[in-house]
Amino acid sequence: MQFHVNGFHPGDPRFADPQDAVVPPPIKRPLPEQVDVLIVGCGPAGLNLAAQLTKFAGIKVAIIDQKDDRLLVGQADGIACRTMEMFQAYGFADQIMQEAYQVNEAAFWKPAADQPSHIARSGKVQDVADDLSEMPHLIINQARVHDMFLDVMRQNPGKLEPHYQRQLLDLEVDPDGGDYPVTAKVERLVNFSQYSQVIETVKARYVVGCDGARSSVRKAIGKELVGDALNQAWGVMDVLLNTDFPDIRLKSLIHSNNEGNMLIIPREGGYMVRVYIELDKLKDGQRVARDKMTSDVLVAAANRIIQPYSMDVKEVAWWSVYEIGQRITTAFDDSTEDRAARVFLAGDACHTHSPKAGQGLNTSVMDTWNLGWKLAHVLTGRADESILKTYSDERREYGQALIDFDREFSRMFSAKPKSAENPDGVDPAEFQRYFQLFGEYTAGVSIQYRPSSVVGDGKHQQLATGLTVGKRFHSAPVVRLADAKPVQLGHCHLADGAYRLYAFAGKAEPMSEHCGVKALCEFLANDDNSPLKKYTPTGADPDSVIDVRAVFQPHHQDVETSSLHPVLAPQKGKYGLRDHEKVYCVDNRPVSSGGGKDIYDMRGINKEQGCLVIVRPDQYVADVLPLDDYDGLARFFAGVLTEQA
Amino acid sequence: MQFHVNGFHPGDPRFADPQDAVVPPPIKRPLPEQVDVLIVGCGPAGLNLAAQLTKFAGIKVAIIDQKDDRLLVGQADGIACRTMEMFQAYGFADQIMQEAYQVNEAAFWKPAADQPSHIARSGKVQDVADDLSEMPHLIINQARVHDMFLDVMRQNPGKLEPHYQRQLLDLEVDPDGGDYPVTAKVERLVNFSQYSQVIETVKARYVVGCDGARSSVRKAIGKELVGDALNQAWGVMDVLLNTDFPDIRLKSLIHSNNEGNMLIIPREGGYMVRVYIELDKLKDGQRVARDKMTSDVLVAAANRIIQPYSMDVKEVAWWSVYEIGQRITTAFDDSTEDRAARVFLAGDACHTHSPKAGQGLNTSVMDTWNLGWKLAHVLTGRADESILKTYSDERREYGQALIDFDREFSRMFSAKPKSAENPDGVDPAEFQRYFQLFGEYTAGVSIQYRPSSVVGDGKHQQLATGLTVGKRFHSAPVVRLADAKPVQLGHCHLADGAYRLYAFAGKAEPMSEHCGVKALCEFLANDDNSPLKKYTPTGADPDSVIDVRAVFQPHHQDVETSSLHPVLAPQKGKYGLRDHEKVYCVDNRPVSSGGGKDIYDMRGINKEQGCLVIVRPDQYVADVLPLDDYDGLARFFAGVLTEQA
Repeated sequence: MQFHVNGFHPGDPRFADPQDAVVPPPIKRPLPEQVDVLIVGCGPAGLNLAAQLTKFAGIKVAIIDQKDDRLLVGQADGIACRTMEMFQAYGFADQIMQEAYQVNEAAFWKPAADQPSHIARSGKVQDVADDLSEMPHLIINQARVHDMFLDVMRQNPGKLEPHYQRQLLDLEVDPDGGDYPVTAKVERLVNFSQYSQVIETVKARYVVGCDGARSSVRKAIGKELVGDALNQAWGVMDVLLNTDFPDIRLKSLIHSNNEGNMLIIPREGGYMVRVYIELDKLKDGQRVARDKMTSDVLVAAANRIIQPYSMDVKEVAWWSVYEIGQRITTAFDDSTEDRAARVFLAGDACHTHSPKAGQGLNTSVMDTWNLGWKLAHVLTGRADESILKTYSDERREYGQALIDFDREFSRMFSAKPKSAENPDGVDPAEFQRYFQLFGEYTAGVSIQYRPSSVVGDGKHQQLATGLTVGKRFHSAPVVRLADAKPVQLGHCHLADGAYRLYAFAGKAEPMSEHCGVKALCEFLANDDNSPLKKYTPTGADPDSVIDVRAVFQPHHQDVETSSLHPVLAPQKGKYGLRDHEKVYCVDNRPVSSGGGKDIYDMRGINKEQGCLVIVRPDQYVADVLPLDDYDGLARFFAGVLTEQA
Repeated sequence: MQFHVNGFHPGDPRFADPQDAVVPPPIKRPLPEQVDVLIVGCGPAGLNLAAQLTKFAGIKVAIIDQKDDRLLVGQADGIACRTMEMFQAYGFADQIMQEAYQVNEAAFWKPAADQPSHIARSGKVQDVADDLSEMPHLIINQARVHDMFLDVMRQNPGKLEPHYQRQLLDLEVDPDGGDYPVTAKVERLVNFSQYSQVIETVKARYVVGCDGARSSVRKAIGKELVGDALNQAWGVMDVLLNTDFPDIRLKSLIHSNNEGNMLIIPREGGYMVRVYIELDKLKDGQRVARDKMTSDVLVAAANRIIQPYSMDVKEVAWWSVYEIGQRITTAFDDSTEDRAARVFLAGDACHTHSPKAGQGLNTSVMDTWNLGWKLAHVLTGRADESILKTYSDERREYGQALIDFDREFSRMFSAKPKSAENPDGVDPAEFQRYFQLFGEYTAGVSIQYRPSSVVGDGKHQQLATGLTVGKRFHSAPVVRLADAKPVQLGHCHLADGAYRLYAFAGKAEPMSEHCGVKALCEFLANDDNSPLKKYTPTGADPDSVIDVRAVFQPHHQDVETSSLHPVLAPQKGKYGLRDHEKVYCVDNRPVSSGGGKDIYDMRGINKEQGCLVIVRPDQYVADVLPLDDYDGLARFFAGVLTEQA
């Protein structure tokens, strides 16, 4: 999609008249007096949590923000592959893909050997390694991501609109406060000075602080951000421009000799680019105090760095100056030895870092993607409170790793290029290698959670070497049996709070006497220890808590749907209609038809024995088990789900 | 996407609460008194025309329909590949793809050899041949297609909502009537009997009758449908069901021995299916008069045909009975020897046929896809009225071919299976072969318009043997140079009324002295005969009338953007921003990265000489020329565009 040619306008780019692209907010309503979850902050972390929780009709949520209205410009723009996988689970990945800029290659520029005051391209690299993810790396205005979450919130059973213009004043947790132990005092911010102060009080079971680096929630529970405050100053601007710089539509990392460093990120619509300029690396005479900074200063700096090319900036759609500090909170929740958590922190409230590796938004949404289903399971009675402890355990470790990564990446990015005069500088080739090495990291797919109640010990990992226990389920192509549709297996995993059991069949004839999947289905259907029977509430759809799927190795035309065990065609809804989309085959179609990709080969699945992969609601592999390890299966779920009456 | 599990509900399936999925209509407004185009009928033909015309801010359109409101249930559901290519041009192909059922294979069933009262599968075939189109064959409620067009109409510069509850009473064409020679009298249909009759009068430059088989517009201009009225009665129903029929999620064509024939079309959402039952083939004792027909009769018939399987129907979401007649209108417009057309017919108003090959909606939208840009060109002063004559010429021939095809397909579908007792019957294997043979036809990609002012003679066809002059431009994968994005070349062709010039470079080094694309750019930029210079209005974007694109053969990393001729990076919009998305390279990426598809090989393009492909605004190839045939190029456009001041 191309847009912005007549200047930057916020909102849905499909509307020809920019004023139609931004829907005005609904009339302000008072806050509810009592909620299950109060979310503070309408950034990506908060909206993602709201989107996840509103999937459950019975959970009452409110989300507040100090802002006047939804975000329209600026802030983050990088969407990592892993984040796109999550967007797929919400159903809006396609829309983002259509609008966004797709990062395919990155260009590296350094001082020209023959004329160091000019920059020269040192190389181009593929941005996302093959089969790192089925999703691309994208760039789009953070505001559009918010729009998608807001749409999901409206469309979901929990139908939710944010309460804007609300400032958290105070938060109190009374451990003996019954079902709603947290009391939040919220001030309604009004634009008219003659209004008297309006305070609303909300009682909540849980409060989640997604309110950024200066989090009021974090302060209220007595936590703080600790770590280096490097205070490197960066300027950032979204501009519409003409330039003779040849890679203006590629992500370009530019090290100049004496004028500082710059990062160019092409943006959605074909015309806009984001430019990051390292201000501390500007020459002494060119620095200005932060309060005197203007976009003209940034444009001038960009033009010095990019010599012999130049930028003719036509419009600055947004600009800002910020300082980098790699810091992390002392705790992710308010739990103590004696008491489970009632208040959680997520996103920038927990960790801050430089924006250049594009990890801010992506890490923030992954925080609440981890927390959301756990809260939902507790609030719907599927799990007991102990599961909430794993949020802090899992995300704090990752938050620290992120800080460490960011520090190293920032150091390399900010260092001068290695040269005769700067023997301690960074070799651009080394930076390029580091960039590629950390591709998995920046794509968000490297996270591996440690063994816990929600992650198994992986002692059968060899049955599926490419589906690492603790890492996200790495999707691969298959053909859906019932309708012969080529699909990504992982795309059946929606943001619905259900665990998935993928039964990869071994060599035995599908559904024959020796078929391990058939035996597993028998266990699941009939055994008293079956997690399906123990943890699915009466009246709920059979796949609503644990969703069983099977993959077979033969060509899909050689497996008959009529042979399938009823567990693989569960009856759902008020009519008890059979769901025919639970069974897949290896994509044995010819390569000329787009087939020939064998998920067993791609993910190292044992073709003789097959295996069972347990996947958490947030798409992380909980464990890999032999198909007949019924005890192991029962044991895992006994640790994470509560038996239903 | 899965939905309908708790019963069928119309509207946008992403909404959890069905009542949110249907947006109520806006408050009724009076009709404008004067419009450029009055469209009668809010079916697919009418809405497509409205969507196309509203792309142009200066064209004033009104669209009326007798219905109370937008369509919610029933009617057509098949979306041919070619129609999806058009949806892509409007920007909603992705959304349709996400919601729809994708037809990948078709199953054929015939009487079992050993027990003819039972059916047995005779085979399965791939539904869409490899590389027939980059788009799939889909099935979705016609109402959702309407929704997409309605969205485009709202988002477009021409911002349009239909006027529902309006019945055309009378149409008068006054050849001396000045700029608005057509006068339409429209009755406002109100639900309250106490209201007196409200008549609105609309003066129009053009009127287009998209008002179905019983078209009032057709009657008003004295045309009629002629042809066979076969009066084969068919029953159709959308049902939610459980069944042991193994191919319930495949398109299934079922010939029973004595109980009649049936067609099963799985529908969007995973649970619903459409069933077509041939009522004339039911046994005498089982036939019922049309006015006594109920859905129970249809369900009972289906259960007899499908023996030994059975259907347990839980809900009938929609059902109908219709009679097939293959008929075509005596003329597609009201033109005479002396006078250009003022009134046009499109869609079912022109041709009727059986729904089984899924050609109704698809042919209807292709009618107005052909007419829309021609009307827009005349109304915006780009072309003179003579171009409108090609609408009737092109579509009438295709309409007749469709009738002929449909008659043969219906005959074969309705015939009894060949057997000892029925030696004159149709061999199911022959039917299956016919089905595959006509895949191109049913996909909508076989249409080839004859040479005319808008289609060249194709004397240089050998330069691109796979881009047939008169057929739709057959897209193929390329890599966009500026951002290294793998794209479908044809997807740059939006529904914006512009011609495309695709300059496929020959073997010479890109933009070198001998590069034919460079020489072409020089001609286009500087020569007095350049169509770019002659036909682009002052102040309009340089690509708004003729959009020039180039494709080069080397790897995209071996072509520098800085080498490109300015014609390939035109300056647009109020800032004169350069458009960087006009140039592509062959997808020379390794196969492991998804590359290795050479558009020159796929489309038979001469690698030595290259060629120039002129593509009409409706994506049909107008001509293939040598890169240096500047006279031929100038001559073509002189025949279709009007010189601008």
